[in-house]
Order: sequence, then structure tokens, then C-alpha cells
Amino acid sequence: MARKASLSGFPELLPEERVVENHVLDVLRRTFELHGFSSIETRSLETVEQLLRKGEIDKEVYAVSRLQEDDGARSAEKLALHFDLTVPFARYVVENAGHLSFPFMRYQIQKSWRGERPQEGRAREFTQADIDVVGEDALPFRYDVALALVIVDALSQLPIPDFVMRVNNRKLSEGFYLGIGLEDTAGVLRSIDKLEKIGPAAVAQLLREELGATDEQAEAALGLAAIRAEDTSFVERVRALGVRHELLEEGLAELAEVIGEASKRAPGRVVADLSIARGLDYYTGTVYETFLVGHEQLGSICSGGRYDALAATQKRTYPGVGLSIGVTRLVARMLSQGLAVPSRKVPSAVLVALTDDAGWSAAQDVADALRSRGIACEVSATAAKFGKQIKYADRRGIPFVWFLGEDESGAPTHEVKDIRSGEQAPADPAAWEPPHEDLRPRVTAPTGD
Amino acid sequence: MARKASLSGFPELLPEERVVENHVLDVLRRTFELHGFSSIETRSLETVEQLLRKGEIDKEVYAVSRLQEDDGARSAEKLALHFDLTVPFARYVVENAGHLSFPFMRYQIQKSWRGERPQEGRAREFTQADIDVVGEDALPFRYDVALALVIVDALSQLPIPDFVMRVNNRKLSEGFYLGIGLEDTAGVLRSIDKLEKIGPAAVAQLLREELGATDEQAEAALGLAAIRAEDTSFVERVRALGVRHELLEEGLAELAEVIGEASKRAPGRVVADLSIARGLDYYTGTVYETFLVGHEQLGSICSGGRYDALAATQKRTYPGVGLSIGVTRLVARMLSQGLAVPSRKVPSAVLVALTDDAGWSAAQDVADALRSRGIACEVSATAAKFGKQIKYADRRGIPFVWFLGEDESGAPTHEVKDIRSGEQAPADPAAWEPPHEDLRPRVTAPTGD
Repeated sequence: MARKASLSGFPELLPEERVVENHVLDVLRRTFELHGFSSIETRSLETVEQLLRKGEIDKEVYAVSRLQEDDGARSAEKLALHFDLTVPFARYVVENAGHLSFPFMRYQIQKSWRGERPQEGRAREFTQADIDVVGEDALPFRYDVALALVIVDALSQLPIPDFVMRVNNRKLSEGFYLGIGLEDTAGVLRSIDKLEKIGPAAVAQLLREELGATDEQAEAALGLAAIRAEDTSFVERVRALGVRHELLEEGLAELAEVIGEASKRAPGRVVADLSIARGLDYYTGTVYETFLVGHEQLGSICSGGRYDALAATQKRTYPGVGLSIGVTRLVARMLSQGLAVPSRKVPSAVLVALTDDAGWSAAQDVADALRSRGIACEVSATAAKFGKQIKYADRRGIPFVWFLGEDESGAPTHEVKDIRSGEQAPADPAAWEPPHEDLRPRVTAPTGD
Repeated sequence: MARKASLSGFPELLPEERVVENHVLDVLRRTFELHGFSSIETRSLETVEQLLRKGEIDKEVYAVSRLQEDDGARSAEKLALHFDLTVPFARYVVENAGHLSFPFMRYQIQKSWRGERPQEGRAREFTQADIDVVGEDALPFRYDVALALVIVDALSQLPIPDFVMRVNNRKLSEGFYLGIGLEDTAGVLRSIDKLEKIGPAAVAQLLREELGATDEQAEAALGLAAIRAEDTSFVERVRALGVRHELLEEGLAELAEVIGEASKRAPGRVVADLSIARGLDYYTGTVYETFLVGHEQLGSICSGGRYDALAATQKRTYPGVGLSIGVTRLVARMLSQGLAVPSRKVPSAVLVALTDDAGWSAAQDVADALRSRGIACEVSATAAKFGKQIKYADRRGIPFVWFLGEDESGAPTHEVKDIRSGEQAPADPAAWEPPHEDLRPRVTAPTGD
């Protein structure tokens, strides 16, 4: 990742970096499945019409067309690469509703593309790992709690710094704004969303100048956004601001349910943060953002929220709640800051050395025996000097080299050498196992594991 | 897969179909790693210049551009989606040569895009699983043997019909053609490549009319192409045709090494087939194609070969040998013909039922205990009637439902029901395990496993 991408915004990993990325993806996938989420993938291309339905980021969308389009053929349908996994998933749900069981819990780990200005944490091609639960016409609120816990479970297993998921609720914010007489709740949310970037004074100015807020209204909105809590104490602090509105009460109850359960099950990991706005997204209830402690300027590594209607047809609506992990952003940071290192760059635990060229088949027998017990290995392609074969293993971090020989009677002998310690001992291809920590490349924080 | 894709050529799988695809991908990945291959991914986009270097399939290439391109910004570099994984890999090797250890063994499982006319076995977006070994300036021939064995090992573990890898060698064919006086060896290969489609008489006509072959030359070329053998007996049959050429001898020796070793290690799986031409590809030695027995009209599910120069710079050449599995083609056939079925469509082995809404947290404790032992499970989101919760599990194929209760003294009780047999028994969340075959969705041939 220190290397410059040959195409700006399209990073490619070296094999040892890919070991780290695969470790992250494996942990996510395993955790999502342990929580009952099914895997799906959607096609990479959508119609432009589908993608721009909410009409926000058209400048960033990559259009796709045949290099030499057949005359007249299907030119009606303009295609583009998807820029997230939510829009394609919503389409997938509508198209396949008759084949799905609702509530439908799915995870989706795929690339997306946005033509943004590249910078750390923002690539033009990037991998997202999304989980969503979607219901038919209704979806129990409990899933808003459960999804936060799935993400906490997944991120907790990664070799990354502490993280904090900050949760708010749109009903709470919007109800509060309505309660103080600010009707353009979307406008207030967009302003509050800039709090971290421009500070409270500038936000107050925006609220006054763009939304016509009084000093008191601006102060109240900022007062709400200043509330953070690791437990449900935020409820009393909001009430102390003296604002009353039905929607506010609903939002308070929902957020209290998320924080109440999460603070029991994952203390300090999931907090109420009433400044979280997610200004440009069409959430209608819970909203989530997740930050690495000490790396807040990287931006959120996992965001999402609840939609009353993730998708809708004339007959049905599909409410949903989901979260999306920015895998590329997270892994880029892990690599650039050396937060995680792989124990080796290749899968092989063993190199089976060749004594002479004719011995290749016998060496393959050893390799097959090891592989049948899940031990990854390679066979040397040429009978170079042992020193050279050991160097081959050493350059790749392969810990063990296997030697075949013959005893005085001509019977085959087997020895395995740990090239780190130099220790060499007889070994049985049908029984030998490497120490557990050498079986596969491990990915750990550099200081101890 | 019986459903029609909403965008022609861009198939999307249902969750239960994705279980089958994931099983295939998992087997491939595990096998490739057991044989020592490292994972990499390349970006999905290449410059058009890079993609069209060999200038063949430009009509099929999907060009990519920003929907609203910034005026003048980087318009110099036209981009397109890659149509295979070999061209991007060659570029990756050259760009990262200083960071790689050669011979470099990598696998790459990614999507590619081609704007071909969609039909079964040919999608516009499709997943390939490639393995290649690439050397710096030289690459031992042994890898040509080893790679065939890796693919045999991988495919043998899938619930698919018998398969046969057919192997030929370009040196053998081209040496033979030169030996009979046909100098346009590429032209002859292109004609021979049509053998299966148009038959020997039409190929003979092509050879005579387009390449100026005599009847004797055409007959000899077809005589060579008719040779198939499960062992090295093909060598004598070629020699019996009475043609002599240095390149032919080299090719015979190489193919004999592949078939000799493979026929020992995987009898009947890897055969010599001297009709295999791979007409449009720039291979320079071994060429491979792989067919499902009884599904030959599907086309090859795994093809590849040896390149003298997979990539080259002014200073160095990078010879390589590789094979590419058409995962989408293979999985589409498995699904359309019902060759493989998943035991269930969701990961969950257990649904933890809710007795009342207040019991959700206790149910999560049970779920966490099961997950910590690798048992995938879900918790009901609402305390519906047990019958409804059991139906929820049944619709998804979840085999077990867990019930929490209280005994007379108010102490918690746990019971687990196998909803297939109806059997219900007390269980300990800290110790209970499902039968091994129920732990994860399994994918098997429908008649026994």
C-alpha cells in the first residue's frame, strides 16, 4: 500500500497484504454466517436509471458501454457500475421477493466504484461488506439492536484498535427539531452533519442563515447534538432540554432499546451520540457510524441505518435495517499504519525439497499426504542444491523444509527441518503436523498476539 | 437460474443457489492454498490500450467512463473492464516484479466481463478462478505437470459428473505441421480448432482452400488430431505417422511428461488429445481443456496453457503456465441440471425461539454460547406462537429450534427440538452440538453423498 497505484484510486495489494485483507474478509464472512446471514451477490452493473433514482452522486458514477456498440442494439438501456450495495440489493429484493423468505437476512461482500478524488480511505474501486435485514411490509425493531451486535462481534475479532459505534435515531432528532419549531428537519440534519468538520459556531450560523432558525433554536439543536452517553442516561439529558414531541418520544424509546441492550452486551462499544446525522442518506430511524479510536479522521469504517422502505412496489413496502463495513478503507489503514502483519506471505507451511529430478513423484506423494491433513505445501520444481531450496522457502516465509533420502538398506527416509531454528528431525508423512500456529498464515497486531 | 436475469447476460443467484456457488469457490480456494498458491486480486479496470494489446475481442470489451466526465480531466486514459484475468495478471507481475518472489504461484478468483451474446455457459459478467505460475526469465517445465494435478485435485472434490482434462502441446502440433511442410502453423491450428464444430471433412477443405494444403498434408494433420490416449502410448502413434521435426520431438517429450505423471496419479482424468488447439490463444507449449463427461456441448470448464512470455519488459521475460476455471459456467450447469443441491438455504443450524419479548436477551446469551463453538444461529425477533416460530425455521431449512423455559423453582430450562423428526430433548447451551452433517449447509449430488 506504500506503493503508488498505477491507476490512481485503484489500489492493488501485494500477496502479503492480500493475506491481511483475506483475514478480514474471512472473519467478517464467518461472523455474518454465525449470526444467520445468507450470502448473495448482485451483478456489478445497474441501469443508470436505477442508480440515479435518488439523484445525488451522478458525477461519481462510472458509465459502462460496449467499446464498439452494435448499431442500434439495446442502446436504450444505459448501464453503469454500482456505487454501493444498497441500491442493487433493494432491486434484488423486489425482483426476487417471491423466492425469498422474509425477514430476509443477507450479507454481501463485493466491490463498488465511485469516481471520487482518491485519498487515503477513499478509493475509486473498493470492497464493502454489507449486512441487511429486510422485511415484507413490517420488520421488528429488534433487528436494529441485533445488527449493531453483529458488527461489534465481527470487528472485535480483527487486529484493529478499539472502535466505537455511535448510534442516533432520526425520529429522535427530527422530533426534537419539530418540537422546537424547525420544520425543515432534513436541512437541520444536513447542517448538523457538518459539526465535526466546521464546528458548532459555523453550524449555528448555517442554521440561522439557511434555515431561518432563531438563536434559541440553533442553541437547542446544538445542545441536542452535544449529548453522548455510554448508557441510557441520554434519555434524561434530552428530556432536561424541555422539548416535547411524539416523534421525539418514539426515537428516544428506540435508541434506548439499542443502547440499553448493547451497553449490557458490549460495554463501551456502542454509544449514543446525538450528533450523528448521516445527512445525505434516506434513513428513517436508527443511524450508525463507527470509528477507530485514534483514527477518527479516517472517517466511519461502518455506517448504516433503518429505512421505512428500503424498496417498494405498488403492493408492498420492504422496510430494512443495514450496516456497511468499508473493507478497503479499513484494510488500507491497517496496512499503511502497520496495525496488522501476516506471519508469512504464502499459504505453504512446508516445502518438500527435491534430492534429484527423478524424485519429484515421491516428493508429490509426501505433499499429497500432508495436504490430505490440511497442511499446505509445495514441491520444489528442480533439484537445486539444498541451500538454494532452503533459500526459496526462507524468502517466502515457509517455516519447514522436508527432505527425502534413503538409509543404508535403500529404504526411504524422511526428515523435516524448521528453517527458523535449524532443528531437523525424522518425520512420518502420514502423521507429522506443524505446530498449530504455523499451519496457516496468521494475521496479528505487531506487538504480541 | 431457471429465473430469467432482469439484465440479459448478468445472472444473479438466489441464496440457496449461492450456497452451491460458495461451496465451489471454497473448495477451489482451499485446494489452491493447499498447493501453495497465494491469493491476489487485480483491479477490475484496465486501460483500453493494455486490454487490446493482442487486439482480438474489442467488440466484446466494456468501456468505462465517468457519467459526467470533468472537463479535460484524464480523458487521455480510456478505461475498460477486464475480459479475463490473464491480461491484468501479466501487468501486475511486471509492475510488482521487484516485490514478488519468483517462481510466483498465485490464484485469482474474480469477475470478468465480455459483451458476448448470452447463452447457457456464456454470461456477460462471470467469475473465473485462475491459477498461474510465473517465472523470471525461466520456469521449470514441471509446473506444467503440477498445475494439471492441482486442477484435478480441485475438481475431484466437487459434486459434478466425471471430467476429463485433454492435453496437447503446441510444439508437438506445430513441429508436426512444419514436418509435413505446412508453414502457417497458426492457420492450421485455427482450422483444427474447428474440428468438433464442423467435422473432419470440412476442416480438410479449409486446410486445402485456405492454407493450400495437399490432400496428403490435410490427411496427415487430421491423422494427428485423431490421436487420443490415456497414457504415453500416443508417442508411438505419432511416430508411426512418419513425420520428423525437432520441435515435434520436444513437444512429444513434454506431453509425455505431463501424461506419464498424471496417468499415474489421476488415471483417466488427464488424457492426451492431439486435437486440442486453442486456436486464438498465444500459447507456446502445453495446452489444456477440460470437459464434463456427458456435458461436452457446454464447452471447456477449465482451459489454459504455457506461455514463453506471459509478460515481458525490455530487460526480462516472464514465462508462465496457467489454467482458468469457468466458475459461472460450471455453477450454472450444476444448478440448471440439478447436479448439486444444498441441504438448506441459510447458514443457521439453530433458531432460538422467544417465549416472551422480555426473554430476548437471555435468548441472545444462548445464541452467543452456540456461536462461540461455531454453531450458526438466529434469535427470533418476536415472541410469536411457537408454531409460527417453528414455521419460520422450517421455511429456511433450519433443522433445530431451541426453547427456553423455567422449571417449578423458577430456574431456567433449555430444550432443543429437531423439527424434522419432532424429537425434543433437554440441552445445555454450553455443550450441545448438532450432528456434524447439520453444522453447516452441505452441497451434494442429489442421489446420495
